[in-house]
Amino acid sequence: MQNLSFTVKKEAKKSRARLGIIEVAHGKIETPYFVPVATAATVRGLDQMDMEELRAQVLLANTYHLHLRPGDKNVKKLGGLHRFMNWNKPLFTDSGGFQAFSLGYGMEHNINKLGNIFPENKKTKTEDIKEKFATINDKGVTFKAHHSGEIIHLNPKKSIEIQQNLGADIILAFDECTSPLSSKEYTKTAMERTHRWAIESLKFHKKKAKKTKQALYGIIQGGEYRDLRDESTRFITSLDFDGIAIGGSLGKSKNDMHNILDWVIPSLPKNKPRHLLGIGDIDDIFIAVEKGIDTFDCVYPTRIARRGTLLVTPEEGGSLKNKFRLNIGNAKFKLDKKPVDRTCTCSTCRNYSRAYLNHLYKTKELAYFKLAALHNVHFMLNLMERIREAIRNDSLHKLKKKWLG
Amino acid sequence: MQNLSFTVKKEAKKSRARLGIIEVAHGKIETPYFVPVATAATVRGLDQMDMEELRAQVLLANTYHLHLRPGDKNVKKLGGLHRFMNWNKPLFTDSGGFQAFSLGYGMEHNINKLGNIFPENKKTKTEDIKEKFATINDKGVTFKAHHSGEIIHLNPKKSIEIQQNLGADIILAFDECTSPLSSKEYTKTAMERTHRWAIESLKFHKKKAKKTKQALYGIIQGGEYRDLRDESTRFITSLDFDGIAIGGSLGKSKNDMHNILDWVIPSLPKNKPRHLLGIGDIDDIFIAVEKGIDTFDCVYPTRIARRGTLLVTPEEGGSLKNKFRLNIGNAKFKLDKKPVDRTCTCSTCRNYSRAYLNHLYKTKELAYFKLAALHNVHFMLNLMERIREAIRNDSLHKLKKKWLG
Repeated sequence: MQNLSFTVKKEAKKSRARLGIIEVAHGKIETPYFVPVATAATVRGLDQMDMEELRAQVLLANTYHLHLRPGDKNVKKLGGLHRFMNWNKPLFTDSGGFQAFSLGYGMEHNINKLGNIFPENKKTKTEDIKEKFATINDKGVTFKAHHSGEIIHLNPKKSIEIQQNLGADIILAFDECTSPLSSKEYTKTAMERTHRWAIESLKFHKKKAKKTKQALYGIIQGGEYRDLRDESTRFITSLDFDGIAIGGSLGKSKNDMHNILDWVIPSLPKNKPRHLLGIGDIDDIFIAVEKGIDTFDCVYPTRIARRGTLLVTPEEGGSLKNKFRLNIGNAKFKLDKKPVDRTCTCSTCRNYSRAYLNHLYKTKELAYFKLAALHNVHFMLNLMERIREAIRNDSLHKLKKKWLG
Repeated sequence: MQNLSFTVKKEAKKSRARLGIIEVAHGKIETPYFVPVATAATVRGLDQMDMEELRAQVLLANTYHLHLRPGDKNVKKLGGLHRFMNWNKPLFTDSGGFQAFSLGYGMEHNINKLGNIFPENKKTKTEDIKEKFATINDKGVTFKAHHSGEIIHLNPKKSIEIQQNLGADIILAFDECTSPLSSKEYTKTAMERTHRWAIESLKFHKKKAKKTKQALYGIIQGGEYRDLRDESTRFITSLDFDGIAIGGSLGKSKNDMHNILDWVIPSLPKNKPRHLLGIGDIDDIFIAVEKGIDTFDCVYPTRIARRGTLLVTPEEGGSLKNKFRLNIGNAKFKLDKKPVDRTCTCSTCRNYSRAYLNHLYKTKELAYFKLAALHNVHFMLNLMERIREAIRNDSLHKLKKKWLG
């Protein structure tokens, strides 16, 4: 029984970057790939016809959100997630473990998993303890639903059952994500819990895997601690997962994250795809690809789009310094007839000017959110295409230099 | 100089309905036609690529809104409204006169032009006087901008100048719209003002019409009073307008509106197109087409879409009784695999179920607004296509009976 096959087409000479193809029940994914996040069965601002237009190869939906609304059992009755959202290509679902962090510790300490204070709440200090929506122990996670206050329990069995009801091609083991503010002791406890949950997740997955045709990824935890990451890598790779995800706290700085990838990746089996959870910054993608990551997912491109931030290539002035961003609400764009990015072939750039987008953003017109999300997702998918092409042509280092300087 | 040509292709035998073609600088409009409203240069929830997909022939944008943001002078600098919004087919702009009513008297008395209390404010009594955002006298209208508090003056000269800057194919004379609550005396005063403004609008339009290639419609006022409507019809038809619009209060009931059309239309020249301002209910459209109206505009289909109301044909249970509507938020659609309307060929109905739309609506996902607006606008355009076909086949009465019973 093989619900996922992964073929490495080419390995780069000067880095661990590799070109591959993941094949699952609903089709193929060319790697390295950035997986757009369709939280509640829609990439925020777009519909699946837009994703077809963008030739997206795979989407990632959130177990926690879909369990709450419309309910995974309802999705099952409606023929599964692919049919529900009318998306006939590959799908990932996450396990809900990340929400145990983001709605629990993250909410309590007002930080994200890189230890940054949530940008939405810049005025709040990390010390201002907020209401906590999730508590965790060995039996699982108890959530208070963010929109209704309903009490939800998740554990490995339940997470896998939900993901089976949803029916994505690639599902994730239930894990506990820790924060850069967690002590080493707590990070170890959480990692050990994640390992026990990995075994349980695998057990419940295996029972029905022949029927579900799903593939399961295990998640490596261990925070920013080398010995813990080593231990977690050994443990997770010893189990019969179809792919490996790297999760949890990636340290206090980008450098920490790069170190973690250097510790973990050389010990990973070459024949399994590697997913880096929740990462979407352009510099991180270049570096992680060079270090051997195959797939990424992040809400970054659609989230920043909603706040007026559009991505631009180096050809259009994008750089590490400006994070490849422009703020379309800026008054300087009010009379700018150029598209967001003259090198971009997305429908937004082919059809509309910066001036028009500035107007739609300022007047909060609904059309803005679609046009902005479409551009940013296209940008990410196009970047990955350039990266794959560069690996193919042995020019990844050159491309990276062009982008990151 | 002929900036608009109108050809009547066929007149119905048993009613005043007619099939026609309006030709203006940016193309042709087959009539009878429902013109979607693109208030701030976008049909709310959709972009112009969506409108192309819907094969929309013409849109109507609002002078008042565009004067405020992004500013008509800026639109002119950007190459005019067509270029600004990337819409190369015909465009209407209104004159701003309606906002003098809706932000003035309407806001003050909390009613719309049919005398209905604004549905948004059902709990407010008409007697609860609200803040007024517009005041009117012979010199024009003074607005307090709804979003910034900025003071704006409009008069016939300024309205035409703004509309020249925007550059729509068909523009409207500056008028004063009255309410069914207005006395006959006030309605007469406003009508006489509208007549003076009609002459001024025509004068400022004519000065540049050769260059602008715009056509100008005059607006008949006179409220629900037969002698005033007769007087206004005589006056407006005596002037050299390219088309005739019927505006203002259309009485206290649908019956009043039908009477007004019966008074006015038989006295209109047959060779000019006739536009009924701000009407979009399905029964009104059937009746007004039979009485000889060529074009309509209304925010109705997109506004109700945003509130969860989707339009359905008689084949799918739509009727006068349910106003051809279903409420997609209703729990009974949670597991409904059918499209909104099985006879509908729009992208929403081809690709998504009621269950998926129910989910998107309940979770307030951005994709909902687009998919819902797309369906409702498609519904209206498709209805007009059926009406045109029925006039062509001498079966309008049969079609109307099928829809209205």
